[in-house]
Amino acid sequence: MNTVYFDHNSTTALRKEVLETMLPFMISQHGNPTSRHVFGRNAHEAVENARAQVANAVGAQANQIVFTASGTEANNFAVNGITSNLAHGQILTSAIEHPCVTRPAQAMQSRGWRAHSIHVDTYCKLDIHHLHNMLAAPTNLVSVMLANNETGVLQDIGQIAELTREHKAYMHTDAVQALGKIPVDFADLGVHAMTISSHKIGGPLGVGALVLDKRVDIYPLLHGGGQEKGLRSGTENVPAIVGFGAACELAIKDLSHFSKQTESLRKRLETGLQEMNASIFGKNANRLPNTSFFAFDNIEGETLVTALDKAGFAVASGSACSSNSTEPSHVLLAMGVDSDMARGAVRVSFNAENTLAQVDAFLKTLKQEVNRLKQMTAIAA
Amino acid sequence: MNTVYFDHNSTTALRKEVLETMLPFMISQHGNPTSRHVFGRNAHEAVENARAQVANAVGAQANQIVFTASGTEANNFAVNGITSNLAHGQILTSAIEHPCVTRPAQAMQSRGWRAHSIHVDTYCKLDIHHLHNMLAAPTNLVSVMLANNETGVLQDIGQIAELTREHKAYMHTDAVQALGKIPVDFADLGVHAMTISSHKIGGPLGVGALVLDKRVDIYPLLHGGGQEKGLRSGTENVPAIVGFGAACELAIKDLSHFSKQTESLRKRLETGLQEMNASIFGKNANRLPNTSFFAFDNIEGETLVTALDKAGFAVASGSACSSNSTEPSHVLLAMGVDSDMARGAVRVSFNAENTLAQVDAFLKTLKQEVNRLKQMTAIAA
Repeated sequence: MNTVYFDHNSTTALRKEVLETMLPFMISQHGNPTSRHVFGRNAHEAVENARAQVANAVGAQANQIVFTASGTEANNFAVNGITSNLAHGQILTSAIEHPCVTRPAQAMQSRGWRAHSIHVDTYCKLDIHHLHNMLAAPTNLVSVMLANNETGVLQDIGQIAELTREHKAYMHTDAVQALGKIPVDFADLGVHAMTISSHKIGGPLGVGALVLDKRVDIYPLLHGGGQEKGLRSGTENVPAIVGFGAACELAIKDLSHFSKQTESLRKRLETGLQEMNASIFGKNANRLPNTSFFAFDNIEGETLVTALDKAGFAVASGSACSSNSTEPSHVLLAMGVDSDMARGAVRVSFNAENTLAQVDAFLKTLKQEVNRLKQMTAIAA
Repeated sequence: MNTVYFDHNSTTALRKEVLETMLPFMISQHGNPTSRHVFGRNAHEAVENARAQVANAVGAQANQIVFTASGTEANNFAVNGITSNLAHGQILTSAIEHPCVTRPAQAMQSRGWRAHSIHVDTYCKLDIHHLHNMLAAPTNLVSVMLANNETGVLQDIGQIAELTREHKAYMHTDAVQALGKIPVDFADLGVHAMTISSHKIGGPLGVGALVLDKRVDIYPLLHGGGQEKGLRSGTENVPAIVGFGAACELAIKDLSHFSKQTESLRKRLETGLQEMNASIFGKNANRLPNTSFFAFDNIEGETLVTALDKAGFAVASGSACSSNSTEPSHVLLAMGVDSDMARGAVRVSFNAENTLAQVDAFLKTLKQEVNRLKQMTAIAA
C-alpha cells in the first residue's frame, strides 16, 4: 500500500530537479569553499550562485543571506544574536510562535533579558493592541511568524513591523511556512530579519537561512573559521546550499500553480469536513492555501492520526516538530480553544502534487474512522 | 586536466557506498522523524540505526551520540553547553585548537568565564606542566584536540584527561581529524565529550556529533522542538545522518588499509621533501599517517599553493577553514616557528585512493615550482 502524504508542512520530498543540481557536488566536486585550489573555488562559486537564487526568491540582496543548517538554527541565531549586542530589555514573541523562537527567547532570561508572549485572538491573529501596550517598555526584539505551521493563519507582518520600528525595536519574522506557498518579500515586509528553510519547499534537509538587514549588528551563534563573513562559522554545506538555491528558484516559478492547486484541494477537503461537523481552526482568517487544521468532538487527534496512517494517509496531529509531547497544541490553547478540543486536532497540509481523488479517498476513510471511533467512545461511555 | 586532490583534511569526496545509503532518504523516504505516521517512523528508525553505527565506530553507546550539523557546531555546543551550567571558572584550550574551540571559549568571557591558552612545544605537543600549573585555579573545562588539522600531531589525551579529572574539571577533545585515520575510542580516552564530523571521512557535509558522557549536565545551543532528547533542536537531517553512519562503518573497516597506504605515501613524500631541504613541522612527533606540513625558506605558502593548483595539485596553505585570513598559521606560531617560515607552510593530506605515482608526479612539479619561485626571488632581491 502506498501511503498518501498530506504532511508537507512537516517536511517535503526532495524535488528531482533539485537533487540533480546537488549530485555533482556530492559526487565529484567536493571542495571546501574556503580552499584556494580549483575544488575550493568551484565550491565557492556554487555557494554564491545559490545565495543569489535564494535572495531573488525573497526580494532580498545576496549579501543579506546568511546560510544556516536549519530554520531552527536561523531562529535561534536571530533571537540570540540580535539581542546579545544590546542592553538588556525585553523580547516579545507571539503566543503561537514555534518553540525554536520562544525557547531561545526564554533562554535569554537567564542572561538578563525578559521574554513576554503577545496574545492572539480566536482567529489566530496577533492582538495588535496587546503588542502596542507591551512596546511601552524598552524592547530589543519582536518576533512574529508570517504563517503559522499548524493553522496556516497569516499575520499582518508589515503593520507589526511598522509598529515595532516606531518603538525602536528590531523585528524578526519566521517565514519558514510561508515560503513557496505565498509571496514573501523581505523588503516589502519591512522586517530586520527573516528565517527561511529549504526542506519545507522541496529542497534538501540541512540548510536554512537568516535574511538580514545589514544595519543590524548581530552576534554569531556559531564561532570558528569565520565563514559567512564571520556571522556563521562551519564548513558550508555546499550540496545542500546548491539544492536550496534550486528549490527557491522552482518554488517561485511554481508559486501560482501551488497556490491554485492546493487551495482547490483544501476547499474540497473543508467542504467534506463541514458536512462531518468538524471544527476548522482559523477558518475565517487569511490562511496558507495548503493547510487545514481541524478536530471532531470527543475524538483524540493522536488516535485518529494513527488510524489514518494504518488506512494509508500520513497527516499530523498538532505540530510535528514537538510531537514527542502529548500536550495539546499551544497554538490552539492561545486561540482560546479548550484543551479537550485541542487534543483532537489533526493537520492536513498539501503540496501541488496531491490530487482531488486523494482528497475524496481521504474524506471517505476519515468518515469511516470518525464513525468507528465515535462508536467505540459510545460503547465505552 | 584532472587535478590531483591532496587536501583530505579539509574535506573529502562522498564515498559512493555512502551516497547509495543516502539516496532512498533523499528520493522517496522523506519523513520527519518526529512524525508518528509511517514516513516519520521509518525516518526515526534510520536515524537510530545510524546512531548505533556512529557509536560503534568510536567505542561509545548509542545514547551518548548527539547529532549536530557540523564539527564546528559540536565544538561550540561542548564549550558553551558544558560551561553554561557551571559557576564561573576558567576554560583551558590548547594553543593549537581549531578556532571553533578557541572562539567559543573567548565568547564565554563576556559572560563571566575566563579563557586561557595552554602552550605546546616545538613538536606541537601540549606542555603538560603548563596545563598542570593552570589547573591550580578553578577550572570548568579543558579542551585539547586529539589530532591537529595542520601538522597531524597527536596528543596524549588519556594522560591529559586523567590530569583534568583529578582537578574536577570536564575534558573535551576535538577528534574531527583523528576519526578514520587512527583508532578513536571514547571510553579509552577518558574524556567527557568528544567531537567528530562526517565530511572528513567520506561522509556527507552537514552532520557531525558530540559524543557525550551522560553524567555531564550540558545546556543546549539550539533550542526548539526538543529533538536529540532536548539537547539539540531542529529537524534531524535524515539523509546526512544515515550517510554519516555508513561512512563511520566503512572508515572502521578500512582503517588499517588507510593507515598503511597513506603512511607509505607520506614517507615517499617526505623523503623527497628532505632532499629538497624542506622543513617538516612536527616531523618527530607521533602524527596522523596521512598528513605532512612543510615549508621552504623564502617561499610564500600561498604563492606555492597557487602555482601547484595551476600545475594540477590541490593542497592547502595553513588551515583551510580559516584560509580567508592571510595571517600565518597560529599552530606554527604556537610551536615557536618564526612568522616568515610559518607563512611558507603548505599542507598535503592524503586518502587511501591516492597513489605513489601521484606523489612522484607531485614531487617533480614541486621541485620545478620551488626552483622557479627561488629564481624569481633571487632576481627581485
